[in-house]
Amino acid sequence: MDSVDPTRAFIKNVKRIVVKVGTAVVTRGDGRLALGRLGALCEQLKDINSQGYEVILVTSGAVGLGRQRLRYRRLANSSFADLQSPQNDFDGKACAAVGQSSLMALYDTMFSQLDVTSSQLLVTDSVFRDEAFRKQLSETVKSLLKLRVIPIFNENDAVSTRKAPYELCLQDSSGIFWDNDSLAGLLALELKADLLVLLSDVEGLYSGPPTDPKSKLIHTYVKEKHQGEITFGDKSRVGRGGMTAKVNAAVCAAYGGIPVVITSGYDTDNIKKVLRGDRIGTVFHQDAHLWTVVKEEGARDMAVAAQEASRQFRALGSQERRKILLDVADALEANEGEIIAANEADVAAAQEVGYEKALISRLALKPGKISALAKSIRKLADMEEPIGRVLKKTELAEGLVLEKLSCPLGVLLVVFESRPDALVQFLDQFTNTFLFQMVQQIAALAIQSRNGLLLKGGKEAKRSNAILHKVISSAIPEPVGGKLIGLVNTRDEIPDLLKLDDVIDLVIPRGSNKLVSKIKESTKIPVLGHADGICHVYVDKFANLDMAKRIVLDAKVDYPAACNAMETLLVHKDLLSDDGGFKQIISELKNSGVSLYGGPRAATALHLPETDSFHYEYSSLACSVEIVDDVNAAIDHIHEHGSSHTDCIVTEDGQVAKIFLTQVDSAAVFHNASTRFCDGARFGLGAEVGISTSRIHARGPVGVEGLLTTRWILRGNGHIVDADRGVEYTHKDLLSS
Amino acid sequence: MDSVDPTRAFIKNVKRIVVKVGTAVVTRGDGRLALGRLGALCEQLKDINSQGYEVILVTSGAVGLGRQRLRYRRLANSSFADLQSPQNDFDGKACAAVGQSSLMALYDTMFSQLDVTSSQLLVTDSVFRDEAFRKQLSETVKSLLKLRVIPIFNENDAVSTRKAPYELCLQDSSGIFWDNDSLAGLLALELKADLLVLLSDVEGLYSGPPTDPKSKLIHTYVKEKHQGEITFGDKSRVGRGGMTAKVNAAVCAAYGGIPVVITSGYDTDNIKKVLRGDRIGTVFHQDAHLWTVVKEEGARDMAVAAQEASRQFRALGSQERRKILLDVADALEANEGEIIAANEADVAAAQEVGYEKALISRLALKPGKISALAKSIRKLADMEEPIGRVLKKTELAEGLVLEKLSCPLGVLLVVFESRPDALVQFLDQFTNTFLFQMVQQIAALAIQSRNGLLLKGGKEAKRSNAILHKVISSAIPEPVGGKLIGLVNTRDEIPDLLKLDDVIDLVIPRGSNKLVSKIKESTKIPVLGHADGICHVYVDKFANLDMAKRIVLDAKVDYPAACNAMETLLVHKDLLSDDGGFKQIISELKNSGVSLYGGPRAATALHLPETDSFHYEYSSLACSVEIVDDVNAAIDHIHEHGSSHTDCIVTEDGQVAKIFLTQVDSAAVFHNASTRFCDGARFGLGAEVGISTSRIHARGPVGVEGLLTTRWILRGNGHIVDADRGVEYTHKDLLSS
Repeated sequence: MDSVDPTRAFIKNVKRIVVKVGTAVVTRGDGRLALGRLGALCEQLKDINSQGYEVILVTSGAVGLGRQRLRYRRLANSSFADLQSPQNDFDGKACAAVGQSSLMALYDTMFSQLDVTSSQLLVTDSVFRDEAFRKQLSETVKSLLKLRVIPIFNENDAVSTRKAPYELCLQDSSGIFWDNDSLAGLLALELKADLLVLLSDVEGLYSGPPTDPKSKLIHTYVKEKHQGEITFGDKSRVGRGGMTAKVNAAVCAAYGGIPVVITSGYDTDNIKKVLRGDRIGTVFHQDAHLWTVVKEEGARDMAVAAQEASRQFRALGSQERRKILLDVADALEANEGEIIAANEADVAAAQEVGYEKALISRLALKPGKISALAKSIRKLADMEEPIGRVLKKTELAEGLVLEKLSCPLGVLLVVFESRPDALVQFLDQFTNTFLFQMVQQIAALAIQSRNGLLLKGGKEAKRSNAILHKVISSAIPEPVGGKLIGLVNTRDEIPDLLKLDDVIDLVIPRGSNKLVSKIKESTKIPVLGHADGICHVYVDKFANLDMAKRIVLDAKVDYPAACNAMETLLVHKDLLSDDGGFKQIISELKNSGVSLYGGPRAATALHLPETDSFHYEYSSLACSVEIVDDVNAAIDHIHEHGSSHTDCIVTEDGQVAKIFLTQVDSAAVFHNASTRFCDGARFGLGAEVGISTSRIHARGPVGVEGLLTTRWILRGNGHIVDADRGVEYTHKDLLSS
Repeated sequence: MDSVDPTRAFIKNVKRIVVKVGTAVVTRGDGRLALGRLGALCEQLKDINSQGYEVILVTSGAVGLGRQRLRYRRLANSSFADLQSPQNDFDGKACAAVGQSSLMALYDTMFSQLDVTSSQLLVTDSVFRDEAFRKQLSETVKSLLKLRVIPIFNENDAVSTRKAPYELCLQDSSGIFWDNDSLAGLLALELKADLLVLLSDVEGLYSGPPTDPKSKLIHTYVKEKHQGEITFGDKSRVGRGGMTAKVNAAVCAAYGGIPVVITSGYDTDNIKKVLRGDRIGTVFHQDAHLWTVVKEEGARDMAVAAQEASRQFRALGSQERRKILLDVADALEANEGEIIAANEADVAAAQEVGYEKALISRLALKPGKISALAKSIRKLADMEEPIGRVLKKTELAEGLVLEKLSCPLGVLLVVFESRPDALVQFLDQFTNTFLFQMVQQIAALAIQSRNGLLLKGGKEAKRSNAILHKVISSAIPEPVGGKLIGLVNTRDEIPDLLKLDDVIDLVIPRGSNKLVSKIKESTKIPVLGHADGICHVYVDKFANLDMAKRIVLDAKVDYPAACNAMETLLVHKDLLSDDGGFKQIISELKNSGVSLYGGPRAATALHLPETDSFHYEYSSLACSVEIVDDVNAAIDHIHEHGSSHTDCIVTEDGQVAKIFLTQVDSAAVFHNASTRFCDGARFGLGAEVGISTSRIHARGPVGVEGLLTTRWILRGNGHIVDADRGVEYTHKDLLSS
């Protein structure tokens, strides 16, 4: 996943920060001080201060706090009768006076505990019109910051006489302020800050009320686009702020040259995250409208368009679907030159960056590959029509016929990992295919199955992917159109995509096991893939040991990094006494450069170093070996330590084989054949999107079928249920008969 | 979901609480004060204090804090050269002296801000041997608590001379203490507290290292069971505590009569949760070994046993599976008397509690029902064998044959909502079945599909479920055995079950839409079900209006609370001018007591009150009506506002019907038939576990088929891949040929 988002790139030049803390952050829902949040805020500001940033704090909350304390005071001093009688609430100025000193004392104590010195600065709006005042203020703050003191600003509410309405623009830096948000904006401009952070009680600015699940966080505010169109969140219960005030202050500051981020003050690390360039909150920047990446809802729009295109596609016949694939194949051949050029540019760039050779070799398009790809697409085009197949047909009652038909899943998201940490594990999933071919295979599968597709490609193949996407998309005619397949900008973050569970129906991660696990943990969308490939070969007592040797060697050595490679060799205990056969397997493995690690029994019997764990995917020329009593013990071992991917028995005893094949609860179970056969192409599924170890939906190598779901179609002539009084059910199977 | 857990029942007698805050809570990883956590703790204690509890605090952290402050002091006073030279660290006593006053000042400020008075009490171990001291201490604390002051205890570390090793037992209340955990335990006994809460940096006591994903939180500690067997978490980096010290202190206090809870101090609401009786942290109680519910891992053990039983089951033939179901049917009939008695007891209890009549009527077993149920089970037994069906058979190469077989999913968890909030929505999912019958249907389906099953029944049917479970389980012979179906104790919490994603393969919630949504949000296990049932009937221009009337009325009125009832009626615009036909549908709906709400167009044209939203499930005699231009507009409306459950078109125009049936992307799409047909029994699936609107795995009404997955079986005679050099792939379909 990529690092700093380009819409957060300005962060690297930030040194001086104004942080505004809203009333909703300082106080809780019941009006009391939110001590926990305040303490965490101080900790965070201390850390930022220690990192060398200059921190200026603008704090709200004094009035609310003062009111709370005065209420308590009154309670303590009142008789019961007093409490019963209705009383007017306190004067706001009095609350401000009481709250201000209380709040400052608290900040002082907290910061002192963290060995930070803070200082109080109270200002009123009118003084900002005074040039001398503004100069003095700058000087004072400069001195404080030099001493690493944190200045804490607040409006001098107790004696302020301000009544004027909010005047929008502070661009000349001489404006007045109306609330602490605009005070913060004004100070940011006045003190030449590099960043203004407005801490609110919501994640940022939303396209609608933050409580509405359909509202989306706006990551980057563009005045031209968002002004007026946005429903702001409710105004905070206490305090004058609210989201409208924040947006106004943010727009003013941003157009005065100070980038602004509105984010939540509830997360105790949000300022740090902002300074790290994380894509949180809402950014306001004077150049935002120029940023080409500010297609806020890019991924969502793309997903919705793909969904719509997929729906249009369903209305077309088999011949039309076939023709599209044939056109795609033709287009690939016709644009071979352009594709090769783009691919060469990617390869050159990867070499320059210094990528591993193995990765580069998988990136590079081999000669003659385009026509081979085109050929495989033509083959796919001629395969059986997957959509609309009648899987079940039942007459429910006379004239009432039910069909179960195959249909597309909807929208798929395929995520290619960008330059993974562990290259070996990365290659693992790409058995026999190379990056380029895979993007294309998946696109062809999506067309064949009439699904919408979002492709999030690895950045090392960005030029190749772009041209491929262009060539394929332009070959798809309206009404389906090029939007069936969306190439997601590499700048769009994967976490944002994974939130689109209302539009995307299946995620297929292509990359390391780590990527798969990470994606599984962070989305509600179903994920197709496998996290582990811990495959076993069990050599039974009645194995043909010559065959066993061939299978074991192939399963481990043919491609050790593949997910379908053997990680554990299980051996029947009687084979140990057998000199010759089995020992030869062990020595052949060793001769092939395989490092062997024994389980408790094998370590002793075969003098092997002991393994720490059987649940381990070596993905290299290494494997575990263990001795088991019989086939049942082998099955138990596989269930306890395996990952339900592919497991194999080698035996000549049909009865034992049957037990193994029936009882081993894995996606693929083999008898006398190498685990390496577990693969979409070898299984004859045509193209493959991945191998699934999940039990729901698709299992094992997944081709077109795993990209389908079903629909029930019922045709009647006015049939009604009427509490089942009107219907004589026949439930006649019309398919088998 | 049930309320207070019985292992937390003692909570209701708690008034006086000792809270111990560990060093790891007070300070952060880098040794600095965790101000945020401390602030939040004070807020929490203030709230508890306000609720009338008597709170006594024992705080650690002074030494660490003192060290930190002294380091800073030295830094501030040192030259650069000083800093470079290695220096010994500070004397622990000095750190304690500095840290203690600093920490107390902070507590004082924080509590003052919240209008709470706190007081410092420093004690050393030796004084506890002095009877007079102990008496005085009790008196002082009593006075403080009476004044609602929070006493804050700490060991007087700075002058303490304690060096003796920890002496385990404090049962006579005259023991000494070794650390703040044991001080807290001692004080709890001495001050006759009702509860001791030890706040740690982990959720509680784990069966292994808390970082190991296999470690499980122990909810209730039983000395006999857990002593010695548990690997405790690491000792905290700072401070003397660690988990071992906490457990020792907790055991001593518990056996001295004070219940103890160890829980995390990182969650800012954990003490409140403990006082509410939530099942968090680890409880220590002198009677814990007597509690029959303390089968900590009950649910997990049950799931693992069900998984094992399901695996055994797969080895049995069709006739054996059939016989089990027939035996179950016989057993039900043979035990009719006992079953009826249990059911009557449930009904009587429900009447006593005052449950709604509709619920009671669904709970009650109707006469003759047992034999009807037995009959339906016999019918299921005779249906086609679902397991081991060959779905695909391919010759990959000569002598290498691949089969795709149906197989059980594994372990199912079915959750029945216990007395839902909204009865109407509850009944919704139970179209035409009653509670009792459903439990049984699901058990029969599990046997038929050879899946393991965990049933979490509603408590209102607890006796009926228990006897049913007993009767069914005892009819299942070994090696499958009664553990195939586990009846989860109603005391086991649903959240615990939902964490078992390594053993449970599918969750089927049976209850309100709210339950389904809630479960979907809180588990990684796939969930089968539907949250919304917003079904449409579109009456086309070329509809037979007489038929349309029948269908519309049936779809809404037959059973308005069902999920397959119509919620929105869409009408072609041309039908409005048609007087007679369509207007009659509207008036018939009104005559049937249906309240109509119009969309923007219908509200005007038909003088209806306007609806707020089309995405609304009335589940009652009410529906929305809207006018659309044509079939395409109807489809767009359904895609925008529907829930992809069941949608129907009424038309005589075959071409229009085809467009609708092809393009509407819902689980069930009907032509000229009532939406009410969308039901497992009516579809002829035999029993039904629910209706799914998800697109992955199963869609629409789900019977046995939705409880299956597939496996790939490959048989060879020594085939190896050898980089595909050795294999001539034939990919011959052996099933169709």
